[in-house]
Amino acid sequence: MTRIGFVGVGRMGANMALRLYERGYPIAAVYDVRREAAESVAEATGAAVAASLADVTRASDVVFTVVTDDVAMDRIFAETGDSLLTGAKGKIFVNCATVSPRIHEMVEGRARAAGAQSLEGCMASSIPQARNGALFLMVAGERATYEGIEPILRELSSALVYCGATGRAAEIKAIVNMVMNANTAALAEGLGLGAALGLDLGELREILSKTGANSRVLETDGEDMQNREHSVFFSAAHAAKDSGIALDLAERAGLDLPLAKATLAQYRRLVEIGCGELDKSAIAELTFKDRKIKPITT
Amino acid sequence: MTRIGFVGVGRMGANMALRLYERGYPIAAVYDVRREAAESVAEATGAAVAASLADVTRASDVVFTVVTDDVAMDRIFAETGDSLLTGAKGKIFVNCATVSPRIHEMVEGRARAAGAQSLEGCMASSIPQARNGALFLMVAGERATYEGIEPILRELSSALVYCGATGRAAEIKAIVNMVMNANTAALAEGLGLGAALGLDLGELREILSKTGANSRVLETDGEDMQNREHSVFFSAAHAAKDSGIALDLAERAGLDLPLAKATLAQYRRLVEIGCGELDKSAIAELTFKDRKIKPITT
Repeated sequence: MTRIGFVGVGRMGANMALRLYERGYPIAAVYDVRREAAESVAEATGAAVAASLADVTRASDVVFTVVTDDVAMDRIFAETGDSLLTGAKGKIFVNCATVSPRIHEMVEGRARAAGAQSLEGCMASSIPQARNGALFLMVAGERATYEGIEPILRELSSALVYCGATGRAAEIKAIVNMVMNANTAALAEGLGLGAALGLDLGELREILSKTGANSRVLETDGEDMQNREHSVFFSAAHAAKDSGIALDLAERAGLDLPLAKATLAQYRRLVEIGCGELDKSAIAELTFKDRKIKPITT
Repeated sequence: MTRIGFVGVGRMGANMALRLYERGYPIAAVYDVRREAAESVAEATGAAVAASLADVTRASDVVFTVVTDDVAMDRIFAETGDSLLTGAKGKIFVNCATVSPRIHEMVEGRARAAGAQSLEGCMASSIPQARNGALFLMVAGERATYEGIEPILRELSSALVYCGATGRAAEIKAIVNMVMNANTAALAEGLGLGAALGLDLGELREILSKTGANSRVLETDGEDMQNREHSVFFSAAHAAKDSGIALDLAERAGLDLPLAKATLAQYRRLVEIGCGELDKSAIAELTFKDRKIKPITT
């Protein structure tokens, strides 16, 4: 049976590992810069806590990576020092972090040079979906590589889309999250205005849901905005990062996207005041007049 | 049977009149500044084309008004000259234009002084719903007045909500449209970026629909943005007006709403270049890189 490794077992990575374990895949090795995160997954799945990135590659056939950002991607696929690329011949990497398309292309080149293969695995879903194998998973890279591990990817996802060459999935993901973030910021403004006018926010949400203002984020974040319940599913810091990736793509394409810019500015403001680790719904804290945000650590 | 009058029979008003006629209500009188619009509805329903506003009031028990803006509302309920208020004792006005909450309150005061009653009837729907009696209708004003004509309002709507005192429905409508417009502008940016990156927009829309970026406007406007099909359901000029009303409310409440501001700026830009009478989906013409808008008259 294909041995699976994981690098980066925050809430998404950990739940993906638990899901694959539950579906019968041996989780061979787990690595995280926060050792206690790796230990927790190792305990639940019988995996080894890897002492190095090279150890993950050695123990696994397929390695899923879910790291923070471009810098972390560059580091785990470093060309010198401890790296997933050490002894990587014949291994497959599936890189699931939301990072820039360029870094995916760079990592693909390095993996190929090491005799390995890499895929983008962009997830447009959140933690419960990761746990239940119900991710919306967009995969890009060489088709043959994708087809070779499709059964594993199907265990993680309820919707699986092959997007084409490396970089494509990250582009699509960036657009998805850019639009989602803007819808979230707009919803927060609507509810914040409703609150300022003394409207019943439960009724207002009900009305919004029956109109052209309806959106997925109204379902997922509306009540949380009203109740100031900002436990993290998708953090404000991630929202800022993803809108930033999309705006970089837009800038290189010569496009001006004022809504995306306004959204990014709001999420950056949230990060600056120490609320980056709250859920993206916390953007409502900026638009409700009577709210004074206190930074909360999660 | 209650005799119905209509003032302002643009596409919304005309279709509401046709609907009520079809449901057995006599349409007694129709008035529009564009006489041919009034004649068209009169022909279809057997109504008289009223020569004056006072004639509409005289011929009707309940008068629906669907006019352009605050100025038009002020004019049809003028305190001197030709006015719906002439001989208005015992009549009921249902004012369905999206105008500012303040003008609704002012009109209510004038109607009361004339021995008449007025209601706000805010519609969060579009032309097909008006024709089919499937409006989402938010009504505000005195409850007893509302209850007196509830059967008529039910013929027009599939969802009918009583919102409270006069002004409330307009506030809610402004919020609904502010959020809808922002979602529309954000969607246009997402599709515009996708186009610039060479993505298949049909696939991109399909992916967006499965993610947190999904929205009602993705369903109603996404394909039109892709195909540059901007026949008017809800005009860009109306979008600008409604976002403007919401931002006025926000300003008076001391709120800063950057997404709504960015959206308003986009819709104003669309109006300035002569595209105000295109559908709100035309905002995509601003964000698709290779599009050169030519003003189109509808």
